[in-house]
Amino acid sequence: MEMVSNQILSPEALLKHWQGHRSLTRRVIEAFPEKELFEFTIGGMRSFAQLVIEMLSIAGPGLKGIVESAERPYSEDAIRISTKKELLEKWDVETGVINTYFKQIPEARFPEHFNLFGQYAFPIIENIFYFIDNEIHHRGQGYVYLRALGIEPPPFWER
Amino acid sequence: MEMVSNQILSPEALLKHWQGHRSLTRRVIEAFPEKELFEFTIGGMRSFAQLVIEMLSIAGPGLKGIVESAERPYSEDAIRISTKKELLEKWDVETGVINTYFKQIPEARFPEHFNLFGQYAFPIIENIFYFIDNEIHHRGQGYVYLRALGIEPPPFWER
Repeated sequence: MEMVSNQILSPEALLKHWQGHRSLTRRVIEAFPEKELFEFTIGGMRSFAQLVIEMLSIAGPGLKGIVESAERPYSEDAIRISTKKELLEKWDVETGVINTYFKQIPEARFPEHFNLFGQYAFPIIENIFYFIDNEIHHRGQGYVYLRALGIEPPPFWER
Repeated sequence: MEMVSNQILSPEALLKHWQGHRSLTRRVIEAFPEKELFEFTIGGMRSFAQLVIEMLSIAGPGLKGIVESAERPYSEDAIRISTKKELLEKWDVETGVINTYFKQIPEARFPEHFNLFGQYAFPIIENIFYFIDNEIHHRGQGYVYLRALGIEPPPFWER
């Protein structure tokens, strides 16, 4: 594959950007009361804990699949969590998993297609943007849950 | 400023990524009934129309400020909109404004700091990520509004 010369983002900057978002998401998890984290919903949506379990099931496993070129199907079955403490601990473990696997993706692979979870065939850079964007999307929903509960969420611009 | 060699994203790919998100946001605007677009809120938040006006006040004016190196303050005053039709028309006009100004940013400027709206001094690449992330964040909130109204939002992964 031909490498394009006019590039504006390094892998290091992308990882830092993502972990900045993850730091904010962690503070949104912390802002929820224990019970509401697992039970509160609006309009038939999933609880914020369930949305976070989706984030956790995508990020580390997705990167691991990319690094190992393994098209394992998407699954949330590996994550059995029933308390806020467990969810935050899992979040922190995955911070390390993400750092470890992200750094194993050679620059040359980012424009290459990979069939993520055996299902989403896109350039790896786009797969990783999807991980981040999906987290921002669901975290934004968590902000509405917090507001509906009368709780002030952490400022969006603080990472 | 020294240019880093290991870069993984071109300006063209970033613009395409952003406009893909904007295409989805347009469909979220369309999914709202006229009245609820301007009036429905949860937990004291702004209406989705108000959130969209924020997006419109950031994107085009922000890029224009970057291109012209002009630190004009952030303002929503220029946008006077009271119907869904007007909001969609403004959205489409700004699609062209974004394309025009984005393409005028030389690659070498993306890592340079710019004091956006005279207030946010970050590398230009980070300013632009902020524009996109802020849109994803607020659009995610629009999804909750739609669900609360019993309306199925467009799929997140369709751009």
